[in-house]
Amino acid sequence: MAQLVGNLLVAQSGGPTAVINASVAGVIQEAGKHPDLIEEIYGGCNGILGVLNEQFIDIQEEKSSVIEGLKHTPAAALGTCRYKIDFNKKPERAARDLDRLFQVFEAHNIRYFFYAGGNDSQDTSHKIHEEAVKRGYDMRVIGVPKTIDNDLPHTDYCPGYGSVIKYNSTTVMEVGLDVGSMATDDGSCCIIEVMGRSAGWIAAGAVLAKRGNPANAPHIILLPEIRYNMDELLAKVKETVVSCKYCVIVVGEGIKNEKGEEIGADKTRLDSFGHPVLAGAAEKLKELIQGKLNTKTRTVLLGYAQRAAAHCASLTDVNNAFSCGETAVRAAVEGKSGFMVKITRTTQADGSVKWGTDLQPLVDIANVEHMIPREWISEDGFLPNQKFVDYAAPLICGESFPPMDGGLPKFVTLQKALIEKKLSPYT
Amino acid sequence: MAQLVGNLLVAQSGGPTAVINASVAGVIQEAGKHPDLIEEIYGGCNGILGVLNEQFIDIQEEKSSVIEGLKHTPAAALGTCRYKIDFNKKPERAARDLDRLFQVFEAHNIRYFFYAGGNDSQDTSHKIHEEAVKRGYDMRVIGVPKTIDNDLPHTDYCPGYGSVIKYNSTTVMEVGLDVGSMATDDGSCCIIEVMGRSAGWIAAGAVLAKRGNPANAPHIILLPEIRYNMDELLAKVKETVVSCKYCVIVVGEGIKNEKGEEIGADKTRLDSFGHPVLAGAAEKLKELIQGKLNTKTRTVLLGYAQRAAAHCASLTDVNNAFSCGETAVRAAVEGKSGFMVKITRTTQADGSVKWGTDLQPLVDIANVEHMIPREWISEDGFLPNQKFVDYAAPLICGESFPPMDGGLPKFVTLQKALIEKKLSPYT
Repeated sequence: MAQLVGNLLVAQSGGPTAVINASVAGVIQEAGKHPDLIEEIYGGCNGILGVLNEQFIDIQEEKSSVIEGLKHTPAAALGTCRYKIDFNKKPERAARDLDRLFQVFEAHNIRYFFYAGGNDSQDTSHKIHEEAVKRGYDMRVIGVPKTIDNDLPHTDYCPGYGSVIKYNSTTVMEVGLDVGSMATDDGSCCIIEVMGRSAGWIAAGAVLAKRGNPANAPHIILLPEIRYNMDELLAKVKETVVSCKYCVIVVGEGIKNEKGEEIGADKTRLDSFGHPVLAGAAEKLKELIQGKLNTKTRTVLLGYAQRAAAHCASLTDVNNAFSCGETAVRAAVEGKSGFMVKITRTTQADGSVKWGTDLQPLVDIANVEHMIPREWISEDGFLPNQKFVDYAAPLICGESFPPMDGGLPKFVTLQKALIEKKLSPYT
Repeated sequence: MAQLVGNLLVAQSGGPTAVINASVAGVIQEAGKHPDLIEEIYGGCNGILGVLNEQFIDIQEEKSSVIEGLKHTPAAALGTCRYKIDFNKKPERAARDLDRLFQVFEAHNIRYFFYAGGNDSQDTSHKIHEEAVKRGYDMRVIGVPKTIDNDLPHTDYCPGYGSVIKYNSTTVMEVGLDVGSMATDDGSCCIIEVMGRSAGWIAAGAVLAKRGNPANAPHIILLPEIRYNMDELLAKVKETVVSCKYCVIVVGEGIKNEKGEEIGADKTRLDSFGHPVLAGAAEKLKELIQGKLNTKTRTVLLGYAQRAAAHCASLTDVNNAFSCGETAVRAAVEGKSGFMVKITRTTQADGSVKWGTDLQPLVDIANVEHMIPREWISEDGFLPNQKFVDYAAPLICGESFPPMDGGLPKFVTLQKALIEKKLSPYT
């Protein structure tokens, strides 16, 4: 295959994570090793929106120490977006967007395009790859996996997920000790709400806080995959309070009742993808437990804190996120396009895990949601089982403490020198 | 003064913190240096409740590595309680309780009593000290300060506070980056609710996340000390969203409107002290901001997670908490009684801080609430100013990372070998 010489564009999409910047660092540092092929390195501001609007920053104007610092800086350093090229709902707009993207790619001689994101972003990458082929525009498109939700198929796990469950499990351990140390015969309950709209990977991950001891928190984990009978749930809470004097419950924001209705959904508000905004699962459960069992109940809503917690990131996760960025560039310079990088694991004879990366065609990824296998969850649906623990435990290994300054993490900020626009504004 | 030989009792009270166990470790390790005076070292289970019920654990049966591990283990390792000897509300019960306490002290020859807690616990210690004097029972009573609320008077700060504001500031920095990286022209808002019913020390402490940069989160901090005009607050949020594209607000749970009403109070539920249970300040504000400004708003409710976050504890705080325990024992063996240990700071010529401890009579402490000076808050009430920052910044210095095992902190648990009871049960 002929060598392709041109400029590189990397962008970030969807909800940020503690390690999505590590993937960008991987792209940038690997790109720097191929100066014969990759001339300019650009970062797209706010994902595909920045491409449509020609907002590119010149990465070579950034200090190398800042690029290195991206490995421990949370959130999306380039900015992110929730924008979907949606041929189903808005076909005309989608066609116009795609056209504009290629005007921008051509104007800036973008020949390498890397997009870090979840399901929607992999779908965007796939569309761009197909369009490039259709147009005969020689460009290498590789998707970089990212999502705390862990719901991308084919990859062992999604970068960001390891760190969110490390932070959440740490929090559940600490809260469990706190609530346990206050426990009296009156009993008490603490509900910790975590992210996860349709897949329960995040909630399930908190099971690691138990460290194999049934008495340890969390005592109950509620997953969006299961439909819960509220009477059975209350009986389980009561039983736990009687035996342990307290009960710590982890609840995924999207959990459902027996009818399949999200108990925390506020259907009056929709996000930009048309999903109901969820916020109240823990509060709804609290009302139920206090009302029916008369057990004092407090809630914790970790929200954005959980996906941004770089101070408690998993080193395994940071390293894998970085490798995904590196692998994307290596694959592209080798001539590959239309793939997503995936993470692979090999369990050694001594039980340790060897992590690797591989490629999966984007066509296999886009808009497929990967759920927790039912056989990884206890029969009553109230806890993930050992199969899940065996899967999740290696993801949180190792610490990636950021450098500290005055008692707080030292995160980096890109200076974001914008390059000159070449087209008229997109409207 | 004659040397007093007998047994030691240490107990913990009130809401746990990340460092209250470090104070207990200080008491125990210092007590071990005075075997000529201190014969047995007992831990009271669940504070004063365990004393009433004669539930003492034999600390000398614990491994010294476990006592050392208390320095990085959150929550109350001995168990805690919210029980007040209240002569105002329940005079007969209080008199009976006090009588029982001294039966227990005498039965077990308790001559050294250390109680770690906040305002109510210092009040309990004060009553016990006065009763001992009245009865002519020779016992040394020293209060050990503890409260994330930082509302004890005379001490430079309260152990637990340094760690809670280190964790909260770290979280605000991370959430700020996250929300900022998603910011678009539509604007968005994130409200982080923290503890603090009447004193705003915890909320104010999050100002350290700004690191002197007005553009950094948090953009607004709402304190329970101030009565807020909601229209002025909305105008401030709008102004911030226009200039920064996003707005991060930290709100103390007890914040009040112009009429002095707690906006998050659910007056239908009272805690065991008769205070309304607060939970909804952030949710109430979110409704207001979404309803009036139509700005997308998410909330984070840190709850118990903030006071238990040993994984992000301040080394300064851990060391001072430990010193408070040590000092309490040293003072007692020197013959002192009826004091609380307080923390002192000396700012050196080079700006660094030298921490120390001293004693303050318990009579000066009990039930006095120490609030943030008004001159440490900006005129508009929306942010603490440099005077506050100068006070708070030294409290979060240094990291006290717990040892890790499999990616999670390795906390210790006391085995709690109970000693034999000598009295009939207390009813």
